[in-house]
Amino acid sequence: MASWRSRIVQADAESIRIHGYSVVDLMRRASFVETIFLLQRGRLPSAGERKLLDALLVGIADHGSGAPSCAAARLVASGNRQSLSAAVAAGVLAIGDHHGGAGEAAMEMIAAAGKMMQNGQMTAALAAEKTIAEYRRRGTHLPGLGHRVHTSDPRVETVFGMAEAEGLAGIGIEFMRALEVAARAQIKPLPLNIDGALAAILFDLGFAPQAGMLIFLIGRVAGLAAEVAEEYERERPMRIRIDVEYDGEPPREIK
Amino acid sequence: MASWRSRIVQADAESIRIHGYSVVDLMRRASFVETIFLLQRGRLPSAGERKLLDALLVGIADHGSGAPSCAAARLVASGNRQSLSAAVAAGVLAIGDHHGGAGEAAMEMIAAAGKMMQNGQMTAALAAEKTIAEYRRRGTHLPGLGHRVHTSDPRVETVFGMAEAEGLAGIGIEFMRALEVAARAQIKPLPLNIDGALAAILFDLGFAPQAGMLIFLIGRVAGLAAEVAEEYERERPMRIRIDVEYDGEPPREIK
Amino acid sequence: MASWRSRIVQADAESIRIHGYSVVDLMRRASFVETIFLLQRGRLPSAGERKLLDALLVGIADHGSGAPSCAAARLVASGNRQSLSAAVAAGVLAIGDHHGGAGEAAMEMIAAAGKMMQNGQMTAALAAEKTIAEYRRRGTHLPGLGHRVHTSDPRVETVFGMAEAEGLAGIGIEFMRALEVAARAQIKPLPLNIDGALAAILFDLGFAPQAGMLIFLIGRVAGLAAEVAEEYERERPMRIRIDVEYDGEPPREIK
Amino acid sequence: MASWRSRIVQADAESIRIHGYSVVDLMRRASFVETIFLLQRGRLPSAGERKLLDALLVGIADHGSGAPSCAAARLVASGNRQSLSAAVAAGVLAIGDHHGGAGEAAMEMIAAAGKMMQNGQMTAALAAEKTIAEYRRRGTHLPGLGHRVHTSDPRVETVFGMAEAEGLAGIGIEFMRALEVAARAQIKPLPLNIDGALAAILFDLGFAPQAGMLIFLIGRVAGLAAEVAEEYERERPMRIRIDVEYDGEPPREIK
Repeated sequence: MASWRSRIVQADAESIRIHGYSVVDLMRRASFVETIFLLQRGRLPSAGERKLLDALLVGIADHGSGAPSCAAARLVASGNRQSLSAAVAAGVLAIGDHHGGAGEAAMEMIAAAGKMMQNGQMTAALAAEKTIAEYRRRGTHLPGLGHRVHTSDPRVETVFGMAEAEGLAGIGIEFMRALEVAARAQIKPLPLNIDGALAAILFDLGFAPQAGMLIFLIGRVAGLAAEVAEEYERERPMRIRIDVEYDGEPPREIK
Repeated sequence: MASWRSRIVQADAESIRIHGYSVVDLMRRASFVETIFLLQRGRLPSAGERKLLDALLVGIADHGSGAPSCAAARLVASGNRQSLSAAVAAGVLAIGDHHGGAGEAAMEMIAAAGKMMQNGQMTAALAAEKTIAEYRRRGTHLPGLGHRVHTSDPRVETVFGMAEAEGLAGIGIEFMRALEVAARAQIKPLPLNIDGALAAILFDLGFAPQAGMLIFLIGRVAGLAAEVAEEYERERPMRIRIDVEYDGEPPREIK
Repeated sequence: MASWRSRIVQADAESIRIHGYSVVDLMRRASFVETIFLLQRGRLPSAGERKLLDALLVGIADHGSGAPSCAAARLVASGNRQSLSAAVAAGVLAIGDHHGGAGEAAMEMIAAAGKMMQNGQMTAALAAEKTIAEYRRRGTHLPGLGHRVHTSDPRVETVFGMAEAEGLAGIGIEFMRALEVAARAQIKPLPLNIDGALAAILFDLGFAPQAGMLIFLIGRVAGLAAEVAEEYERERPMRIRIDVEYDGEPPREIK
Repeated sequence: MASWRSRIVQADAESIRIHGYSVVDLMRRASFVETIFLLQRGRLPSAGERKLLDALLVGIADHGSGAPSCAAARLVASGNRQSLSAAVAAGVLAIGDHHGGAGEAAMEMIAAAGKMMQNGQMTAALAAEKTIAEYRRRGTHLPGLGHRVHTSDPRVETVFGMAEAEGLAGIGIEFMRALEVAARAQIKPLPLNIDGALAAILFDLGFAPQAGMLIFLIGRVAGLAAEVAEEYERERPMRIRIDVEYDGEPPREIK
């Protein structure tokens, strides 16, 4: 096998370095969130960038045991008490295009709109209108808009306000705000959700679309770890059996 | 199905609360690491507790692509480019009793030693001696000691020093230091490793043994996310085929 | 890295062999179940062994969408439609000591009882009595007995009858039958369940205890694949939100 | 939560039925592979269909420990000896678009070609030519062709020959053979691989494209179970550390 290669970690008998920084220095002088930023971007964040990433990760960490990620983790903990990792991993697996993954799709949408908007060629309002038309034509949902539970997700304005206060708001926030307004006018009230806010902020911070999913994963694992710990502590194994109604073939014989 | 129950998150149309705190307040005023502490313990940490948990998570985040967790994540990314979650989950699964999981076993060992030591009934040195005798009798490795790569893991003294500076060092650190000394005298030089340091600190901060594994998982997912992103960016799918030497049955016929 | 080694598969540019047999010959002359036996045991099964392993795998394949394995797989399919593998893997993860895994524990119990019984030193009835006393002393459930749904699992007698007809019934079946009788007399009616039957048959066929879990995994994946396909076909993504009642801290402020 | 629904399994206190058939009857009279067919298709297979599905599953079961699925499973077993399921699940996760998943893509390609060919509107040769042109235009690899190891995969002709002998060869086989010929003429020699053969046969048996992935998963789990058992039996935990060459930032200081 050809040897593997990596630009992330350099480890030998005496030291461990992440993107060139000694891990011991990072432990003393950087927070976990700064290290997450470093691991993704290859550089340490500014104070404002750190603050926004902290807020996003807090906002994502847990949204209740009934979400597919948390429920899957708890079901696995219910059947398999041999490995905490197995339960956390099942929660991770539930995160995808329809759960947490809208961030990635929304970042791609913002990137496309951003190209139309840059250098003031097009207003955010017009880019939003064109985007809606395009998604309607393709019959695709607008990622980052709409929520089953919240009529207005309180996390969205919080993090947008923080970005503005830090001078870090850019095309991402501008476009997503315009998209919400245009959707209300042209479709129906579809409030910005946390995936959309995550995408807007990460775009304005210069992250690649993939980070929409990866940052969600990192944040949610904090919640999954707590959900799994609660399942072990409070519930007996195999307590859960979801009711299922059978609507298939009636009894029959093998011929 | 009987309805599920949880003490962690309360969510309705207008608000989300974690252990009673509004998630919006947490986003504004607490860091991600404070939220991790809150999720595990039901209360926010002191400044010193926060600092130590930050340092632990930074120290754990990544140790190179060759560790089983990172390598498993990258192999899954190599075969399956459909889901970032699938690759991260495979990395999570590799974390267990022999990789990252020593923290849990070490916390149980410290808890047992702590019972002997409390109220000054027994010195740390004597508790360490008794522990070594007991583990030898059972033929079990001492968790938290020994490392394949490092002769002395630089992360250990860093975090122990921070705990002492914050006035948060307790029986965990005292016992693990004594265990290292006793092991050197009675067995061979076995330097404290990061799992042992994690266990000592988490014990002194009042975490349950299970947290040894869960905190490791949370920290390492930050590294896994970066490793998987690098695999997607730099390597072609299916690039990896590990060489395997066959040493089984010679060719034979079905009779 | 030292090269890996394996006794299972030998593959080169022209041929693939499993434990020495050409895979092409196996495709033509052996069934999938015979290949499963070969992979686990290093030899092809007799006709009777093949018949019993087939019956076990059929009996295990699926037991309804509400079981933790199937429900976890469907929840993951609900959030993550990017990867069929992710959903199937989550179902696999739910299989453990409390779901499907009793087979492994039951095989260890039978192995211990078998040592007491061999060479006619002790009757199955006495070994069962001693086993019950021992498990009660340790406060452990008897693996392979008891079922939440079935008062008498129809799969058990079916496979035991097949083993007897094939002349393959041994100490495993004898002991598990005796255990059921003794448990009814000394504890309460605890019917043999499919894990117990699996363990008895696999023991009599000469499998190692670990196979209790591995054979369950192989059988159940057939069901998981069907459950996941049905979820994709019949249900919209993110349809599922389990109701959770919050019983934790009341609202509070960050101080 | 709205109750779940399923057409697959009906279970109550006395019986378990799969698509209407009593599981006890299936255990006595059907093989595991017939049950796999039943679970996927809702009906039992003919003798020829059963034979082909058996041959496919045997052909897929294992291809050596160095494949990403097997290597990921073994790496997880190396770090985490707490749960056999965790190791098998990691192997499942490695199966995706670039490993085993070509079957799904190839079935979609065949379905498109089949529409051109049906009712004798177009020859297989012409449909193959058009398909190659189309994939070239899109810059996409032809799924089901080409192999890193085998110049001619012996499994392909075996299963095609069996399909022809059983009178079950149809458009799938005809088209894939024509595609191989056309690719050799227009691109370079690209032998049909096992994914392509799987796709051709499953298409001719009337399976949906998704089954390309699901059948691969079911077959490979048999191999994964054996690989994981061998890892537990023959290798010490944490034996594996893949060599990684660091090619990132040189050492630097936090400013």
